[in-house]
Amino acid sequence: MTNPTTPATRVAVLGSGSWGTTFAMVLADAGCDVRLWGRSADVAEEVTTQHTNARYLPGITLPAMTGTTDAAEALADAQIVVVAVPSQVARATLTALRDLVEPDAVIVSLMKGVELGTDERMSQVIVEALDVPLSRVAVVSGPNLALEIAERQPTATVVACIDEDAARFVAEACSNPYFRPYTNDDVVGVELCGAVKNVIALAVGMAQGRGFGSNTIATVITRGLVEITRLGLELGADAATFSGLAGMGDLVATCTSPLSRNNTLGRHIGEGMSLEEAVTATGTTAEGAKSCRSVLDLASKHGVDVPITSGVVSVLYDGLPVEDMARGLLSRPQKAEGIGG
Amino acid sequence: MTNPTTPATRVAVLGSGSWGTTFAMVLADAGCDVRLWGRSADVAEEVTTQHTNARYLPGITLPAMTGTTDAAEALADAQIVVVAVPSQVARATLTALRDLVEPDAVIVSLMKGVELGTDERMSQVIVEALDVPLSRVAVVSGPNLALEIAERQPTATVVACIDEDAARFVAEACSNPYFRPYTNDDVVGVELCGAVKNVIALAVGMAQGRGFGSNTIATVITRGLVEITRLGLELGADAATFSGLAGMGDLVATCTSPLSRNNTLGRHIGEGMSLEEAVTATGTTAEGAKSCRSVLDLASKHGVDVPITSGVVSVLYDGLPVEDMARGLLSRPQKAEGIGG
Repeated sequence: MTNPTTPATRVAVLGSGSWGTTFAMVLADAGCDVRLWGRSADVAEEVTTQHTNARYLPGITLPAMTGTTDAAEALADAQIVVVAVPSQVARATLTALRDLVEPDAVIVSLMKGVELGTDERMSQVIVEALDVPLSRVAVVSGPNLALEIAERQPTATVVACIDEDAARFVAEACSNPYFRPYTNDDVVGVELCGAVKNVIALAVGMAQGRGFGSNTIATVITRGLVEITRLGLELGADAATFSGLAGMGDLVATCTSPLSRNNTLGRHIGEGMSLEEAVTATGTTAEGAKSCRSVLDLASKHGVDVPITSGVVSVLYDGLPVEDMARGLLSRPQKAEGIGG
Repeated sequence: MTNPTTPATRVAVLGSGSWGTTFAMVLADAGCDVRLWGRSADVAEEVTTQHTNARYLPGITLPAMTGTTDAAEALADAQIVVVAVPSQVARATLTALRDLVEPDAVIVSLMKGVELGTDERMSQVIVEALDVPLSRVAVVSGPNLALEIAERQPTATVVACIDEDAARFVAEACSNPYFRPYTNDDVVGVELCGAVKNVIALAVGMAQGRGFGSNTIATVITRGLVEITRLGLELGADAATFSGLAGMGDLVATCTSPLSRNNTLGRHIGEGMSLEEAVTATGTTAEGAKSCRSVLDLASKHGVDVPITSGVVSVLYDGLPVEDMARGLLSRPQKAEGIGG
């Protein structure tokens, strides 16, 4: 796929969880020279020598790439630095690595969350933590469940950057026969979709856990997209982003897949577990449970009504019964169906 | 629910299949006096005396209503006439009943299809077959899987009519604690959503049948809504309808539910059955398999590109392998993500 006369694009992927490892695989399958950095020496060794990451991608054989716990080794000469760490530790992780990042590298965020405390989107956190201009930060988001991509099922995604050349550079680096990136300049919209959809997926999971079927789920998804769009327009995003792959596409994939951690966590809560019990049962980070408060803060700051997000926060942190949330959402007055409704 | 001093609204429901019977139940639960007309004397008797329609709504107990095979009895004094027959027989059925319909009755279409041959939407067929003005024709559509509503799960829907008073009259007649109608004046948009979503559900089912997961499904749904919207705008519909309950809501419910006949038929075809085999296995009418050709005709007439619909027609009637359709859709050039893309 790469021209044999030009050297492969060198990429560092920070974070060897399921999405980080999968995206490293996408890049390697696209012909990049990939170093995958993580905290676990066992995983690094396994990736390098056995071409697997059995904990996160069971049954998947990875292409050739180097696993490492040495950030300096991973970041040396990296033209693209992919960040795939949990969003609430992004600032600390990146601040510690700041001096190791090449001056001209394009930073790619795979993270979907809003930082607690600052209410910042991940591109904002990256700009501050690495001291890079926003024109060097790209965001990748779409209907991209990691385990399906790891099986090399065909998928499309959006690469957003305010700098068109940087977006195209990243898109070319990750384009391969099963992964098709489209560029976009709406960083705010794409990031917001990625963050809020996890919260909507929690709400959908809660409704499913309570035994509600497809009609209710579809209603929550539809009204959820309206809610994300309303907040996005207030923050300067493009309406088209929300009806595209990073908006509706990712929301539908996340809300309908049993592979979604947020959806699974929501189901457990809908079935009657407490947040603590559900987190234990899910056994992994569900971004939405953390981001929902930041999203609600952000919406409140901007005077935007986000009833589903607000309902999720009330269920998770204020003891509102799921039944009351679900019925409350359906009984809201809904004079017009548009984003003002 | 009804004021005891005013008589109950008298409603005739034509068609005792699953959606007709369920909507009759919704109306009866909202306090209407309902007569359910169908061709089967056994079903009519069962509805009246046993309060069940075991073939279409197994396990559901219906409220009090009268089942009948006598159209004159059903239609006498009916203020609302609900039409829930298969869309391809609507014209013949209604033409035969024209003289029995009360002059001021509001006609409600529950049908989701486009007539073969004429490419007309169901409201157009009703206007012609019953010789009534369009201002007396309302359309009901939303994320409304019949079996879930029959279980009295909470659901929202859209009642569309160009006459606001007529829309409100129908909305009030069917509003009950588990069924929440919102009015809208975009008859074209709501009908188009209802017709095209069955075709998109077929495409989604085919992808599922081939083993593709949530990423692919979400992509087909997202691009499918773009396709419906593009056609709708050309026909004079409102963009907002497509992102609302009758558009995105119904599309997501239909495409994600194992209860959808169109989705099930598509799965069978994706798994390798011929159309005839799949129809036999599904055992019931899947509107999308008939409507897809009408939708494609309609789009062609208006110069609108509908690649998913076109792919479905090719698979069903021209022998295109599903694999080729699915990969073809994902490999289409997609410069912009908007409705022009």
